[in-house]
Amino acid sequence: MTGTNSMDRALRARAERVIPGGMYGHQSVRMLPDGYPQFFSRARGAYLWDADDNRYLDFMCGYGPNLFGYGHEAIDRAYVAQMQEGDTMTGPAGVMVRLAEAMVELVSHADWAMFCKNGTDATTMALMIARKHTGRKTVVLAKGAYHGAAPWCTPVKAGVTPEDRANQIFCEYNDVESLEAAVRAAGDDLAAIFAAPIKHDAFVDQMAPTPEYARRARELCDAQGALLVVDDVRAGLRLARDCSWSLVGVKPDLSTWGKAIANGHPLSALLGAEAAREAAAGIYVTGSYWFSAAPMAAALETLSLVRETDYLERTQRLGGLLRQGFDEAAARHGFGLRQTGPAELPLILFEDDPALAKGYAWCVEMLKRGIYLHPWHNMFICAAMTEADIARAVEAANDAFAALKAAGAPEPPVQLAAMRTARA
Amino acid sequence: MTGTNSMDRALRARAERVIPGGMYGHQSVRMLPDGYPQFFSRARGAYLWDADDNRYLDFMCGYGPNLFGYGHEAIDRAYVAQMQEGDTMTGPAGVMVRLAEAMVELVSHADWAMFCKNGTDATTMALMIARKHTGRKTVVLAKGAYHGAAPWCTPVKAGVTPEDRANQIFCEYNDVESLEAAVRAAGDDLAAIFAAPIKHDAFVDQMAPTPEYARRARELCDAQGALLVVDDVRAGLRLARDCSWSLVGVKPDLSTWGKAIANGHPLSALLGAEAAREAAAGIYVTGSYWFSAAPMAAALETLSLVRETDYLERTQRLGGLLRQGFDEAAARHGFGLRQTGPAELPLILFEDDPALAKGYAWCVEMLKRGIYLHPWHNMFICAAMTEADIARAVEAANDAFAALKAAGAPEPPVQLAAMRTARA
Repeated sequence: MTGTNSMDRALRARAERVIPGGMYGHQSVRMLPDGYPQFFSRARGAYLWDADDNRYLDFMCGYGPNLFGYGHEAIDRAYVAQMQEGDTMTGPAGVMVRLAEAMVELVSHADWAMFCKNGTDATTMALMIARKHTGRKTVVLAKGAYHGAAPWCTPVKAGVTPEDRANQIFCEYNDVESLEAAVRAAGDDLAAIFAAPIKHDAFVDQMAPTPEYARRARELCDAQGALLVVDDVRAGLRLARDCSWSLVGVKPDLSTWGKAIANGHPLSALLGAEAAREAAAGIYVTGSYWFSAAPMAAALETLSLVRETDYLERTQRLGGLLRQGFDEAAARHGFGLRQTGPAELPLILFEDDPALAKGYAWCVEMLKRGIYLHPWHNMFICAAMTEADIARAVEAANDAFAALKAAGAPEPPVQLAAMRTARA
Repeated sequence: MTGTNSMDRALRARAERVIPGGMYGHQSVRMLPDGYPQFFSRARGAYLWDADDNRYLDFMCGYGPNLFGYGHEAIDRAYVAQMQEGDTMTGPAGVMVRLAEAMVELVSHADWAMFCKNGTDATTMALMIARKHTGRKTVVLAKGAYHGAAPWCTPVKAGVTPEDRANQIFCEYNDVESLEAAVRAAGDDLAAIFAAPIKHDAFVDQMAPTPEYARRARELCDAQGALLVVDDVRAGLRLARDCSWSLVGVKPDLSTWGKAIANGHPLSALLGAEAAREAAAGIYVTGSYWFSAAPMAAALETLSLVRETDYLERTQRLGGLLRQGFDEAAARHGFGLRQTGPAELPLILFEDDPALAKGYAWCVEMLKRGIYLHPWHNMFICAAMTEADIARAVEAANDAFAALKAAGAPEPPVQLAAMRTARA
């Protein structure tokens, strides 16, 4: 059982004064159950310590960046070595070329690479390149898919104008007819279809793309001269040693990457096919730290681990064990789980739990037992986890289900409902 | 005299294959004179080494981030120490609160802080907050001012839609009547006036804000209930130990920061006054690495150097010496310079040189002598420079002017003219 939270409370009180709302963005705990720590002090391998030194087996992995374990020695050594030579200089270092070559080598649809800092940078660049390439404006996206937090795509429309959202048409993920209808609605103005590699939307069951849907997206883009974009920021390197849609045999023109590509060091990327190269060279995008060499050196090391280790098969196997163990433990106590998404990118919801009352209560019980889960966002298995870690999580789950059952029907989280409405 | 460039040429040839256009953004040398190196291998203090190991005294300072010297030991030590504890985790570390407190303490108009990665992140957040705060859409900006490279503000409009640029009205910097006319044109829809701290536009003489202009911007915002934003990404910490408009006695509601605040480690920030807090808490913005702790630890160390050293007076004095030395050397050889901007943020143009022919030729002569200057972008003095460095630069300038004179009237750079047209 985890202990006190006095440091966390003290930091929150100070943050309340100097940070709007106390915290912002995806790492604010406002939409998490009470008791979740806001501040962390330490991270190593698969584990996190909060500000009060409570330790957690962390299934959020920094919301994605932690693929090979926090504080990975070889990756961090590469970072520091490059930093000591030169990091943010008046021009890029040679490592930028080596990294572009390595990504083009790894990702089958890619002929070139551009680097940036945020996932949103990469998706925004993809949008601009598609518009420059086609001379058109309309993009088709799947309803509810997250592509970043700029005015054109942030899930909450506060401070966003109607013009920021112009030229967007929405379809349903995996619904070929709805995709076709959206493309028809775009008429002769289709610049791009923006696709999520899997349906990894928050709050709902995850879904793999059907090959029909993915192939139809490719065909429609080809027929219209539009570009197909796969936003692999969250799932990239987690499902395949290639773009995630390689699993359904479809090559996009552009793919966006971030999170895991430098195991937590700040880097994102846009990869593209030959057809989109000229348009990519024609837009003007940049950032103060986009050419910094140290994160690129860390990414090169990360990619060599991607190529040379069994991290992928390992995270898939561990994710499968976790899923099976959670299902068995739930059934033992009379709960039904909806575990969806790839095993290595799991999302866990309860049956008959539309307001997430059970999910919240169970996550709180897991947190008390040192297991950090998320009640409505997909989670991540990292390569630093062991079978013993998974066994610990399953054992904790068994106890947490028992506690949940003993406590009776939990209250639904009121604040969450209000915040979900703000996102709609 | 600097030597070979065979490594640079080899890297460029490889980059041409895997990076669109060979390089992109502000660190592409496409708009610099022939002979400028594209790739660098090393940086230390005030010096840079290119891929062929030619050494330069660097007056670009990474386009701004290098304030205390490349590879600053105490700052980098703070970065690495925090990285080893925990960097990109599932939540922020306590250092985020300490840094927000330090920035609020330092910057007189600020009551709160938000952190992000790109300068563009901060300016886009300022835009969203102003719109959320006022429920209005229109922003007034000065023509030619750079506020980042997203679709709403990038200097090249390729891949940008008319809707991306909706709700913008332009005025002339330091022209009170034109500012008033722009605000009148906004009618009852004014959300914000976006101000550059100084006119630091590329290609033209720099200009400090007149107190009348700055005060009028404040008055107009107050009268309209709009927010005043000072975009201090480039100039912040370089002109004052406070927001740059503290020098003219005007407090904005929002200011944006980046570049120098962590001496090259990836961090930017938005600071705000109490009045804008609620709106800031109401927008949804985020990024994968916005909560990473290591750059924040580096920023805390940078801020303590800002508070406790004479870096500001030192860079101002060195900038003054450079300006005086360059002027004297130019006059000696019959050239007239237009040196504008604050001495610590100098821009150097030649009299009677609209196509930058002399400027380009002189910069090439300086580069050969190991001095890295920029022919049309403001430069930066860093605190790691010494009087001996400045004397070296002045001596090189003397020789470069002599060479320029001996060579006769230089050819104007043709490619540059075409690229400037693309920006218009």
